[in-house]
Amino acid sequence: MKTAIVTIGDEILIGQIVDTNSAWMAEKLTQAGFEVEEMLSIGDDAQQIKATIDDVFSRVDVILMTGGLGPTKDDITKKTLCEYFGTTLVSDNAVLENIKNVISNFTTLNELTRNQAYVPKDCTVIQNKVGTAPITWFDHIGKVLVSMPGVPYEMRYVMETEILPRLQKKYDPDTYLKRVFLVRGYTESALASYIADFEDNLPEGFGLAYLPSPGLMKLRLFVRGGHRLQEMEEQVALLTDLLGDAIIAERDIALEKMLGERLFEKNLTFGTAESCTGGNIAHLITSVAGSSNYFKGSVVSYANETKTDVLHVPLDILSRCGVVSEEVAIEMARGVKQLLNVDCAIATTGIAGPDGGTDLIPVGTVWICTVYKNKTIARKYQLGKYREANIMRASTNAMLQLLEMIEE
Amino acid sequence: MKTAIVTIGDEILIGQIVDTNSAWMAEKLTQAGFEVEEMLSIGDDAQQIKATIDDVFSRVDVILMTGGLGPTKDDITKKTLCEYFGTTLVSDNAVLENIKNVISNFTTLNELTRNQAYVPKDCTVIQNKVGTAPITWFDHIGKVLVSMPGVPYEMRYVMETEILPRLQKKYDPDTYLKRVFLVRGYTESALASYIADFEDNLPEGFGLAYLPSPGLMKLRLFVRGGHRLQEMEEQVALLTDLLGDAIIAERDIALEKMLGERLFEKNLTFGTAESCTGGNIAHLITSVAGSSNYFKGSVVSYANETKTDVLHVPLDILSRCGVVSEEVAIEMARGVKQLLNVDCAIATTGIAGPDGGTDLIPVGTVWICTVYKNKTIARKYQLGKYREANIMRASTNAMLQLLEMIEE
Repeated sequence: MKTAIVTIGDEILIGQIVDTNSAWMAEKLTQAGFEVEEMLSIGDDAQQIKATIDDVFSRVDVILMTGGLGPTKDDITKKTLCEYFGTTLVSDNAVLENIKNVISNFTTLNELTRNQAYVPKDCTVIQNKVGTAPITWFDHIGKVLVSMPGVPYEMRYVMETEILPRLQKKYDPDTYLKRVFLVRGYTESALASYIADFEDNLPEGFGLAYLPSPGLMKLRLFVRGGHRLQEMEEQVALLTDLLGDAIIAERDIALEKMLGERLFEKNLTFGTAESCTGGNIAHLITSVAGSSNYFKGSVVSYANETKTDVLHVPLDILSRCGVVSEEVAIEMARGVKQLLNVDCAIATTGIAGPDGGTDLIPVGTVWICTVYKNKTIARKYQLGKYREANIMRASTNAMLQLLEMIEE
Repeated sequence: MKTAIVTIGDEILIGQIVDTNSAWMAEKLTQAGFEVEEMLSIGDDAQQIKATIDDVFSRVDVILMTGGLGPTKDDITKKTLCEYFGTTLVSDNAVLENIKNVISNFTTLNELTRNQAYVPKDCTVIQNKVGTAPITWFDHIGKVLVSMPGVPYEMRYVMETEILPRLQKKYDPDTYLKRVFLVRGYTESALASYIADFEDNLPEGFGLAYLPSPGLMKLRLFVRGGHRLQEMEEQVALLTDLLGDAIIAERDIALEKMLGERLFEKNLTFGTAESCTGGNIAHLITSVAGSSNYFKGSVVSYANETKTDVLHVPLDILSRCGVVSEEVAIEMARGVKQLLNVDCAIATTGIAGPDGGTDLIPVGTVWICTVYKNKTIARKYQLGKYREANIMRASTNAMLQLLEMIEE
């Protein structure tokens, strides 16, 4: 049983938006045991949509389609699906009631929104409880096409509550076994060389994939078939023996979430003093629901006066050592720890780029200081040339450094 | 002349990563006058790669392919392209020299990395100055296939410096005219209703697309053909007349960048006090290179003690009015303005969710206060149920509110 994800929208083909829906859907489908054969993005063009359905149905059993269901003229998916499946649009009272219910809180019903209550006659209509565009499910010569809105939270809600349960009931797929390891301290090729023997001796059907992210490597071991669980456990044991402490987690978890869990378990409070990371660590930490249990706050000290006036970094240290220095990182971390009255803190100071580097302190130089109770660690990192990547890698390294410290 | 973007990698099909490369490439190709017909993501599977090339070449002239060029076993693109184009891998000294040069700063050459110096015999090899995987360009029965690394900054560097200039030289494409407007204060259907007459009367070939983002609407007016510039200007004049002040920018610019430009032009300094947005506004502001010219810092005051101790929100106001209140938002904004000694400031306090809501103050309630010199504005926003979207929408609304205030 193979699936394909098809995204419709000119805004994708001109690069105005990044398609994040497909990755989310692929992850959920994979976890549920379905194989995603391909992902496609095409335009709001009736001919292309129909040709793509024909083409993709020749390779897969289920097409999950998002986009093109909005109320405006550029949205043509519903009409095109009627043409493809040889049916017509009819008004649906249940859909209209749902639309009135959804929009009641913030706006009134206009003609364009009312038109969203028209649905193809020959299909299963699924109500969209969080938006105005209904979901349509077509059964067609033994295959399935589902059309969903492209608004991310609408698609997510509908996939989780309606589509995935219905697909599982219909197809009862085989399990995809997957184990993910977060590994620190290796480049991709260094890690591959180190575990080459392990990889060469994997049992038939097993695969290993390397996914580098800024400052951290994700390693994924996988095989299809629920009956291979015992073999999977054996391979996991071999790999964890081999990598030891370099594995910081045996699951696919975001570092900010993992750090949050550890802080919560150990009943520790936490804050950050961020210069070059500009609040990104705080943003990552607070993206996790429940982070208010351990996170007390941050001082983003972009300007030197903020470092001296709020964090109480002594002016003479700032002048003597320079803003990107071990001493300033330490003073920032200790300053924010005292200011916020927290158990542990992170401070970052560096040159994110693209400008501001010197011969002595080039772009990509970052000092990270972590404090935990009475201990202090300050380390220098030499990162790259790219602002965005430097901010992410500095954030990752800072969280890793604190995690290491509180685990000891 | 049509192009397609093909991304190779199992990690995409299982949803482990979001493909951001395709959107970036599509935007650059569109700007350069090329039409992107489709985007595809497929697995690290030789049969599928070869079948996809055949299939896509039946519809387009140029395939831009990323991924599968890493040093590890799961990367098979180079070998598969050799099979497809009927050629073999040969060692290339110039590539080897480039690899040694690239890695000299941070690691040593191992066998896996050395193997990246093997390239297909019958193709044009383009050096990758920022990574170890070479770029290969195949001319084939009047069509072109380019294979690039999937590492984002490597792909970007190579596209900008090598691939786009070569494609433009070879094809000399017609111009794609596009104008983007950032519009505030409308939902998608309300905006479409309001400008329905304008849209109905657009000249032949012109299109209008709606792109909603959290708290802001992007409207894109487009037509293909450099000779239609005069008509474009006429339509732009009609649209800007119609929408007036609702248009906050006539270009596709991130709000944080636009706010930064205004602050810089007006020589204003700026800081934030963030509770429910958790540092996201600071992160957005500092993602813009040069933001240190106007941004002095933030206090992320997640805990109540941080609000009282650092921002000096009076404890009795916090107790009497509650943390999500107009009064606390005002005290936070004034507190951070004084603390950081800035000209203007933003404060946010609200319930991002998913938990923490009450009947009186449900999830999605956010108070935003902006202060500019001696003026203060505090407004209540009723957002949605989703943490991620609430953080983004609160950040957008906060920046819009400040922008409005300093423009007056």
